[in-house]
Order: sequence, then C-alpha cells, then structure tokens
Amino acid sequence: MKEFILRALKGKTTPDFSLDDLPGAGRMDLVCRCVSNALWISNDLRRDTIIHVVMDGPSLPPKIVSFNGLDLRGVSFDERDIARHIQEALKKGKLLEINQEMGVSPGIKVAKKSFEALVKEKSKTSQLFYLHKKGADVRETELKGDVTFVFGDYIGMPRNTESLLDRLGAKKITLGPVTLFASHCIIVAHNELDRKIV
Amino acid sequence: MKEFILRALKGKTTPDFSLDDLPGAGRMDLVCRCVSNALWISNDLRRDTIIHVVMDGPSLPPKIVSFNGLDLRGVSFDERDIARHIQEALKKGKLLEINQEMGVSPGIKVAKKSFEALVKEKSKTSQLFYLHKKGADVRETELKGDVTFVFGDYIGMPRNTESLLDRLGAKKITLGPVTLFASHCIIVAHNELDRKIV
Repeated sequence: MKEFILRALKGKTTPDFSLDDLPGAGRMDLVCRCVSNALWISNDLRRDTIIHVVMDGPSLPPKIVSFNGLDLRGVSFDERDIARHIQEALKKGKLLEINQEMGVSPGIKVAKKSFEALVKEKSKTSQLFYLHKKGADVRETELKGDVTFVFGDYIGMPRNTESLLDRLGAKKITLGPVTLFASHCIIVAHNELDRKIV
Repeated sequence: MKEFILRALKGKTTPDFSLDDLPGAGRMDLVCRCVSNALWISNDLRRDTIIHVVMDGPSLPPKIVSFNGLDLRGVSFDERDIARHIQEALKKGKLLEINQEMGVSPGIKVAKKSFEALVKEKSKTSQLFYLHKKGADVRETELKGDVTFVFGDYIGMPRNTESLLDRLGAKKITLGPVTLFASHCIIVAHNELDRKIV
C-alpha cells in the first residue's frame, strides 16, 4: 500500500466554509490538489493509494479525512468536488470523540485523531518517509512493501513533528534540487513508486 | 531555456467562455493546470521556463498563448486567474492575422500561429521531445541546452503530428510506467530537468 499523510495545520475541522473560497478555508484548495494528485491518473484511480489529510485548524481539531483509491466512487478530481466531500466528512464526523472514526461514503473516512496518533499507527506496518533538504535522494532510496510519505503544507513541518518522525524511524528524503509545492511532491514521489513498486 | 508546448485540440480560440465553466471551454481547466504546473514552484516562478498553449478549438483557430516565467507578473497560480489571462489574450489577439503575434501583459504573448509552425520554429534552436509509450526512459536521456517538451491534451496527439515531430528530429521519451495527465507529466519532466540542467 502507498500512503500519503498531509498535515494541514490551518485546515478547517468544521464544515462551515464556502466552496467558493477554498483558500480562505485554511488553504483547502491546496489540500484538494494534494488529494487529486495522489489518487487520479489518466482514465483511472490509483487503487493502491490512500491519502490522509490531517486538519488542525478551527473549530474542532484534530480531524483526519482519508481517501482510499480502492473504494472511491462518485468523486471527481476537481478541487471543488473533493472539497465538497471533505465538507461532508466534517459534517458527518462533527460529534466524533477522540480516536473514533466513521465511514462517510465509498472510500472516504473521517476520524477524530491526531497527526501523532496516525503516524505512530502507520509506523508499525509501513516504512515512513518525510521530505527534508538534507535527506537522501529518493532515487537512491529503497522503496518496497508498504510505504507512507508524510508532507507538511505551505507552513512546513513543526520541529517537534520532525522529532517525532525521527523517533519513529522515519527516513528523510529529498525529491530533487528544487523546493516544490506539496501537491507537486506527491506526483514526483508517485513517479518514483511507479518505477520501484508494482 | 526549458519550454513546453501543450496542444489543446478543443481549446477555445475566442474569449467567449465563462470562468465558471472552464471544463466547458474545451477543457480550459486542464490547460490552466498545465500552465500552473509548468511555471509555479514554492514561493517562486520558474524563470527559465516558457509554456506555449496551442489552441485549435472554436471559433478562430489556431491561437497560441505563451507564458514566460522570466517576465510574468500579477498572475496567480490558480486555474481561474490563469484562465482570465488566457481570455484577455484571446480578446486582444482577436484580429491578428496568420503568423502575427502581440504582447498581452508582462510575460504573456498571443499569436495566430499553427502548432506546426511553432514546432518547426523551435526545432531550429531547441531539442524537441514528445511522450510516447515506446520512447526511451527520460532518465536515460541526455537533456542539456535548450529543450522543448511537446504534450497532447486529453485527446492525445494526432498521428500526423507524430509524423511531423519525427521528421523534425523530436525524440520519443517515456516518464515512467503509468500514463499520467499532461499536467502531471510536466511536473515529472521538470524534476528530471532540475536534476540535469542548472
């Protein structure tokens, strides 16, 4: 399984945002581009990929909305439609208590769970990677079995998050010499995975 | 110089389209994602990159709108704003005669020129590449000096276009084992260029 975890520090955790102003909803536009780039390819979905969006913004943090390419149905790859499904997930999951989760629609789940809890859970079954300027070149890195890439959003990754990832044995990698948007990093990471994991 | 040529066979060539329905304007949404991915990186523009969008749809084909990262100013990387600038270019360029071109705003030009004329022109000063399932792996391909990548849109490349590219000495390449959207191909191609051309 190929998994991506995007940490959106300002991402709204309640459904009271407008689909006409996604940047205003804690950069929900950026979140949706990441979801789209993680799962959609030409004429198909990546069936072996899950992306978890961890949102820590107002008003009921934390929330995690997960999209699983295996089961996803009835979602279009445009930002607005993905945002609509995140909004629906936040609505249905409004009363969840900590560490509870629920299905929202085929391939979409919502959980009241922290970033820390999610990465700890993933570290038990999957090799964790995160982007770091001083990391090893992804092309020189062994990628096999279950892998999980952790990305920060436009704010970057808080230092204590990096410490946690290090403690969990996450490997630092770079994708190339230029700093890219998280949504672009996902595409480059997928290209590497496409070449190494069938 | 790094250049991309996107051929949008159905892309509107007159400004009579709605910014609220970019997919309906000959998949202008796809065109705008390609422009965005070609030029914007985290906190900067790619100053060494130009993307030419060749539109062959109704009602005054052909039209080419070119975005040059070196001079571009006042454009945001979201689809709607890029579409607004394409619309402005098509408006200003409405009366252009064949092979005429004009500046629209900093970094944006519009021309009444065919795809064929553009690739012939580029082949004189730049190494041309186009995507093909049976092409050589881009990672095994020498990329240096001025390079131009030619992409089809969702319709793909007509056979006579491929013949023309072959006659002009364009090299067939693949980016990986999975067929991606044109907008994703641009990111993977840039990653390769970032590693090979400084």
